[in-house]
This record gives sequence, structure tokens and C-alpha cells, in this order.
Amino acid sequence: MAYELHYWPGIQGRGEFVRLALEEAGADYVDVARVPASEGGGERALLQKLRALAPPPFAPPVLVAGEFVLAQTANILLFLGARHGLAPTDEAGRLWVNQLQLTFTDLVKEAHDIHHPISGSLYYEDQKDAAKANAVAFRRERLPKYLGYFERILESAGPWLAGEAVSYADLSLFQAVRGLQYALPQAMAALAPRIGRALALADRIEARPKIARYLASPRRIAFNEAGIFRHYPELDGA
Amino acid sequence: MAYELHYWPGIQGRGEFVRLALEEAGADYVDVARVPASEGGGERALLQKLRALAPPPFAPPVLVAGEFVLAQTANILLFLGARHGLAPTDEAGRLWVNQLQLTFTDLVKEAHDIHHPISGSLYYEDQKDAAKANAVAFRRERLPKYLGYFERILESAGPWLAGEAVSYADLSLFQAVRGLQYALPQAMAALAPRIGRALALADRIEARPKIARYLASPRRIAFNEAGIFRHYPELDGA
Repeated sequence: MAYELHYWPGIQGRGEFVRLALEEAGADYVDVARVPASEGGGERALLQKLRALAPPPFAPPVLVAGEFVLAQTANILLFLGARHGLAPTDEAGRLWVNQLQLTFTDLVKEAHDIHHPISGSLYYEDQKDAAKANAVAFRRERLPKYLGYFERILESAGPWLAGEAVSYADLSLFQAVRGLQYALPQAMAALAPRIGRALALADRIEARPKIARYLASPRRIAFNEAGIFRHYPELDGA
Repeated sequence: MAYELHYWPGIQGRGEFVRLALEEAGADYVDVARVPASEGGGERALLQKLRALAPPPFAPPVLVAGEFVLAQTANILLFLGARHGLAPTDEAGRLWVNQLQLTFTDLVKEAHDIHHPISGSLYYEDQKDAAKANAVAFRRERLPKYLGYFERILESAGPWLAGEAVSYADLSLFQAVRGLQYALPQAMAALAPRIGRALALADRIEARPKIARYLASPRRIAFNEAGIFRHYPELDGA
């Protein structure tokens, strides 16, 4: 039985955290909205499908796994982590990885809001002044706080965020680091000397065979200015 | 063994979702930062204690439960829900309640950001124009979308969000409804005819004996303008 992933077809977005886990697991899955529209893909079909699912999801990504219909990125990863050995099997370890993933949830929301601080349904151009002010605060305080936090964890334990074995939280740190490097290259270059372990972890994830094959495949959508991590030069700075 | 809850002593905040679960469970717990400073309470002691915990939390609330040191509200509730019968015991039910709680996480962040859209470390007065614009979008689109979503779930199943038995997601819906009614009374009054089931659920939670006792006790901090749900009349509107 192949998993069905339902997510926006043109962006990495929150769905990418799920895609990375599915790829590292070597799981059989269909990225439903990315098949041709003639075969049921596309955004309009996605919205129709989401409305028909039960229990109803609030928003994509949604993973259909047999009788399970799961939404919320961290919730989907909690499920996949247990199924595919991408999380510790003991309760404390499982909760720790979930806790880390929820911190990525917070980081991702804040990284999105630097370009959309007023409303997700207004254009960037119509909230640019607020975006610039938000981005300054994010670069000065939040970015070093978040990445410094993961760095501290790796300093005290490691080599992975949950210790000896790779988990989906490591995949998510990779994705967050690459996204932030795309969106805010100057800020990330300035921060690099203080987050060496986090950057090295991202490199190790990128070199894992299944992830490397995925990243080189057409299945990996490029970062772009419709996603969470957007490169607007006026929001960046050292 | 009493649980230790570590959270800001002067606000309901995200900690309140944990407090409600502990109270409904009848659990023995100490709200550490709220004991007198002479006995180790207060904000400064809280910050010192958080720095000493392992694994390190990114931010409060933190629950210490014997050897477990848990952060992230939804993660703490996942743990307490299983321990105290506040979530279904089957995997699908447990994940569904977690999924709902993560939707409350999103709602709470957006409800906070209507008064702090630029940065949590700037004063409200210094981001008031952006706050007004954010609040308009929140009231018009996000508030009806979130509460309409929970209403739809209750319409198709109920009487509780996970069906026949109360769960921590119901406690969270109560808290979100009361917080939004405090912050945005006009907007919530205008929405009331369309969310009758959600409002009735909040009333039923409020009338549960342990919750009613808690709400009448000095342990319940009043809503105030240092918390997530703040009543700034200029942000409200029908």
C-alpha cells in the first residue's frame, strides 16, 4: 500500500518535512497533487480531495496511510517516525524528537511571517514595510536563538539531535538550515561561525544516499518565492 | 510524585492549556514559578531553572514528571493525555487529538500575533498600525476559519471533538474560545450564531466539577494584557 501525500504541488513548504521523511524511509508514496491534472493532480483537485477526507484536515499536508488520515506536519512525522525507525522507540526519546519537531514548527511559522507579517492572503508588496521590520527582529533575535538552541543540543550530545541515531528531527534541521540559507544568505553567513555543528549535520543529511538521490531528482521542488523560505534581498542582512 | 510545571507566573499563556489538563486529571502538581520568591518562585528563578534542565527546553511551558523533562505544550499534553485518560488509547484517536492540539497551537500563535505582528520583543504601541491591519485579516478570515473548522467537526461527530469521550483537545477549545471572547468580544459575538456547538462545548467544559473549582480558585490567573489573548478595543470589531 502506497502512502498518499496531499500537498501543494508547486512548493516545498511544510510538506517538504514529510517528503524528506518518506524519502529517507524509502517508503512507497504518491505525491498526489503532483501527478498530471489528467490523472487527478493539480491544485484544484487537491482542494476537492481535502474537502472529502475524514476526519477533516484543517490544512495540508495530509498523509493518507490506509485507514489513517493524518494532518499537521509534526503529527504526520510522529506517525512515520514510529513506523520507519526515524525516531527512538522509548517514550522519552519519542517525546524528545516530537518536542524538537514542534520547535521547527514554530521556527517555520516565524520564517514565513518575515515576508507575511500582516496576512497570508495579502501580497508581499502590500506588507513590505512591516515585513522589513519583522525581518530585522527575526535576524537579530530569533534566528540566532533558534539555531543556537540546536547547536547547544549538538554540543552536549550528538552526533544527531536525539543522540546516536538519526531521526526525523535531523531531516527537519537540514531542511530549516537550507531554507534559511536560501532566504537569508547574508544573515546565515554571518551566523555560520557560531553554528558549526548544525551546519555539519545538514551536510551529513544531504550526503545520505537516499536523500542525495531525492535532492538530485525531479521530485525535489526548488526553493521559490511562493514557499515558506523566500529570498527577498531587502529582508536579508548581516 | 508531584508534577512540576514551569511557566511564567503572571499569565495564562500557553501554560494554561497544561494547567487545565492537570486540573481535569486531578493531578498533583506544583506551579513552580507561582510559589513565593522566598520559596523558589518568581520569574528570575524560573529562568535559572529552565537553563539547568536537561534536555534543554527552547521555551516554557516545561513539565517535569520524574525523569521526564518535557517542553512544547502539545508535546506535554500528548504525554498527560495518555497518562490520565484525557485522550483515546488507540493510535488513530491519539493522533487525531494531537492533530487537533497542533491546530490550537497554530490558532494561539496567530491570536498572539494580532497584537505583536512585527516582534514579540517590541512594545505593542510600537507596532500598533501593523497590529490593526493584522487584526482585521484575523477577524475576517482566520477566526471564522478556525472556529468554523471545530464547529464542523462537532456537527459531524460529537458531542466532543474526539467523539464520545472528553479529551484535552476539548479543554483547549474551551480555553481558546474564552480567550478569544476576552480579546475580541465584538468579533466573537458576531460569529456566535455560526459556532453554537463550539460555544456549548466550552460551557460544558466550564461546568465540569474540577474545572469549575479550578476557575473559581486563586490558581486561575485572570486574562490580562501581558498574555496571548489581549483586549485592545482598537483591534476588535464585528
